[in-house]
Amino acid sequence: MPLLALTQHQFTQLFKAGCIAAALSLGGVQVAHAQRTIAEQFIQDMKDGKISEAGADDHVVQELIIKRSIPITYDYIDMLMNTPNAFGPGVACTVCHNSNDPSKSYRGLDLSTCKGIIKGSTEKPKRALFTPGTDPKRDPLIRRLRNNRMPLGLGFEASTFTPNHMLVKQWIADGAKNDEHFNKDVLPLFSQANAFGHNTPACTACHMSNQEPPSFHELNLSSHAGIMLGADSVAKGVDKATKVIIPGNPDDSFVWQHLAENRMPPGIAPSEARDHPNTTILSAWIKQGAKCD
Amino acid sequence: MPLLALTQHQFTQLFKAGCIAAALSLGGVQVAHAQRTIAEQFIQDMKDGKISEAGADDHVVQELIIKRSIPITYDYIDMLMNTPNAFGPGVACTVCHNSNDPSKSYRGLDLSTCKGIIKGSTEKPKRALFTPGTDPKRDPLIRRLRNNRMPLGLGFEASTFTPNHMLVKQWIADGAKNDEHFNKDVLPLFSQANAFGHNTPACTACHMSNQEPPSFHELNLSSHAGIMLGADSVAKGVDKATKVIIPGNPDDSFVWQHLAENRMPPGIAPSEARDHPNTTILSAWIKQGAKCD
Amino acid sequence: MPLLALTQHQFTQLFKAGCIAAALSLGGVQVAHAQRTIAEQFIQDMKDGKISEAGADDHVVQELIIKRSIPITYDYIDMLMNTPNAFGPGVACTVCHNSNDPSKSYRGLDLSTCKGIIKGSTEKPKRALFTPGTDPKRDPLIRRLRNNRMPLGLGFEASTFTPNHMLVKQWIADGAKNDEHFNKDVLPLFSQANAFGHNTPACTACHMSNQEPPSFHELNLSSHAGIMLGADSVAKGVDKATKVIIPGNPDDSFVWQHLAENRMPPGIAPSEARDHPNTTILSAWIKQGAKCD
Repeated sequence: MPLLALTQHQFTQLFKAGCIAAALSLGGVQVAHAQRTIAEQFIQDMKDGKISEAGADDHVVQELIIKRSIPITYDYIDMLMNTPNAFGPGVACTVCHNSNDPSKSYRGLDLSTCKGIIKGSTEKPKRALFTPGTDPKRDPLIRRLRNNRMPLGLGFEASTFTPNHMLVKQWIADGAKNDEHFNKDVLPLFSQANAFGHNTPACTACHMSNQEPPSFHELNLSSHAGIMLGADSVAKGVDKATKVIIPGNPDDSFVWQHLAENRMPPGIAPSEARDHPNTTILSAWIKQGAKCD
Repeated sequence: MPLLALTQHQFTQLFKAGCIAAALSLGGVQVAHAQRTIAEQFIQDMKDGKISEAGADDHVVQELIIKRSIPITYDYIDMLMNTPNAFGPGVACTVCHNSNDPSKSYRGLDLSTCKGIIKGSTEKPKRALFTPGTDPKRDPLIRRLRNNRMPLGLGFEASTFTPNHMLVKQWIADGAKNDEHFNKDVLPLFSQANAFGHNTPACTACHMSNQEPPSFHELNLSSHAGIMLGADSVAKGVDKATKVIIPGNPDDSFVWQHLAENRMPPGIAPSEARDHPNTTILSAWIKQGAKCD
Repeated sequence: MPLLALTQHQFTQLFKAGCIAAALSLGGVQVAHAQRTIAEQFIQDMKDGKISEAGADDHVVQELIIKRSIPITYDYIDMLMNTPNAFGPGVACTVCHNSNDPSKSYRGLDLSTCKGIIKGSTEKPKRALFTPGTDPKRDPLIRRLRNNRMPLGLGFEASTFTPNHMLVKQWIADGAKNDEHFNKDVLPLFSQANAFGHNTPACTACHMSNQEPPSFHELNLSSHAGIMLGADSVAKGVDKATKVIIPGNPDDSFVWQHLAENRMPPGIAPSEARDHPNTTILSAWIKQGAKCD
């Protein structure tokens, strides 16, 4: 909070209102007093201007719950896994992921127990969903709840194995080079409507330059240089831009992830909030160590 | 998937990417190999173009869950009956339907137990909600979750016993004849605003011809011939058009059902998705035999 | 329902349809018969025109559940407190309010037990959330679920302790007088954009006269007389207008409540329905005595 110019009258009024701390603090004098409750802490942070007023959809949850280290219990995570519509309209996670037997449960993934959540997918290729104690934003569990499949609006059932998909995947696997094959066979796909599914716009319809707006995430998919520069290069600076291609590794490359992975729960509309409060809570539980009791 | 013309280069790239099955299958060669997991089956179906890319809102759930015969447990059905907002914004089903005592529970319907769900309404006229093992789409349980009351936007509390409602019901009960009474007293109601409730459009505002658009469900309520032809006569063919009148039987006639039955949960907006994923799951449980354990 | 002019033919048709009660009742003859089930009662009320056809978003729930005195069980209330998204998109209440220990749970409020709900906030200032057996609409529990913080759109984290907030609070505490200080320092705040938060419109952008539209709630915050008159003075009459200022008592004054209290769950959009069916059910449980068993 910028130091405001209080008139003597305003200062007196604040004082009369019993807002001694506020009056002193606004007058530039810091008041030290023992914080005992989380409500008091939140109010003091608000008064001190330490609460962010902008950010992602979930910033309120961040400020109130995550930053205050309110412990997220496994009981609540269990509720989220079993409750319909917990992360947006859809069936509960455990309808499809309820066993380590891959003949009955997709990917041999069991989200109905704490152990099962931590173990992850048991079908080959086996894969953990996150690393307890770390930020899971780009790990599979949270990624699958947040990231919309591209091109936007493409259904879950639309193939991710078309020749064009395979060309992109293989180009990344081969090192993402700026060679004749790329320029002739791969790069044009990003500027072509319907390249990755029926009735879909070209990637470059939304990602055409390093300026947002109009280019979402300041991502430019119209040239090799733009693709390799990555996302948010203006907001974060060129050096800290988010890489969207990891040469040699399609599975870790955001471009491929967005082309190949569908958002959960199946059928959720891309317009549904990506930062659902319960997704944030699930992240917090993981960051806090993914404790089972 | 139509057989695509692959260049030799594309074919080689696919092969290098390890997508042997895809490459061969796109080349027209069927690859037989044992399917073991449901994820593998889904991927193979996707590659083979066996996954539908369009259809109702719930087609993803159909493809992933229903067609894979993932067993729906009564535990999940129990959760749906007791959870608020399970099928769209609203109170849980069991708030109003929790006992076979019709003095306490609407229609003496108990949705809080598996036995109660299968038994159905115990108040006269007694009525089962579905037949286990069959498609329940037009049976009461699913119908009440999917069908919006007509005219659209009319509140739950608006009377379904007005003289105009009774005239339509009786005309169906009397055989739905194309007689003078029908043409003078009944047919005009369908073309008249406010005929079935305050501030409502005429039925024919939305159902005026056999072409969609503009006529929803290719349904024409402006003539006896149109009404008796039914819905979707172009899409399905005249012989397979969905009958909306069963002469002599108002309760089984869609026209009467839509005029008389309110969508659940009470107060849900007509704009809420009719094919909620959880409604589809509930249907699947019924088709799978409505097993209680 | 206005008594409709039935033709003899219509009357006969109704009679033939077996709708004897309806026919007689529409003909002006009251039919006395013992009501036994709530479904029968509802239908009779509908026929008698006793069901309101308009009102708040929750009027259907009012008609079907509240007016029928369907008992709301604590089990369902417990479900609501623990279920994500129960009152609109957001985390479950019990994530932040799960203990009487104010170092772990906001306001020392425990919503995870019936006793805790009834006890209310145990952190000073201690506060009950409602009085069992009374209408809780303006008590803290329901108020916090319904009332959007003003100015609309302001985030949870925006300070409610700015000098301008304090000036309004103190003016109410001092008796809400129409004096020089009010006219010079307080009144202008209501007509000033950004007075109570960044990027917010002036209060008078929406509350500028006693006519709705355009003035929401017929509330005029542009003069001392308008502020003291209160809300809905045309709809309810000047004598019954809802007071928005209680001189000497900011905490009970709607103006201050709206400036200082955030709607729950944190982060919910102001556009989400205020009268969520589950909020209405929660109110009903309180009106019915807030019974724990």
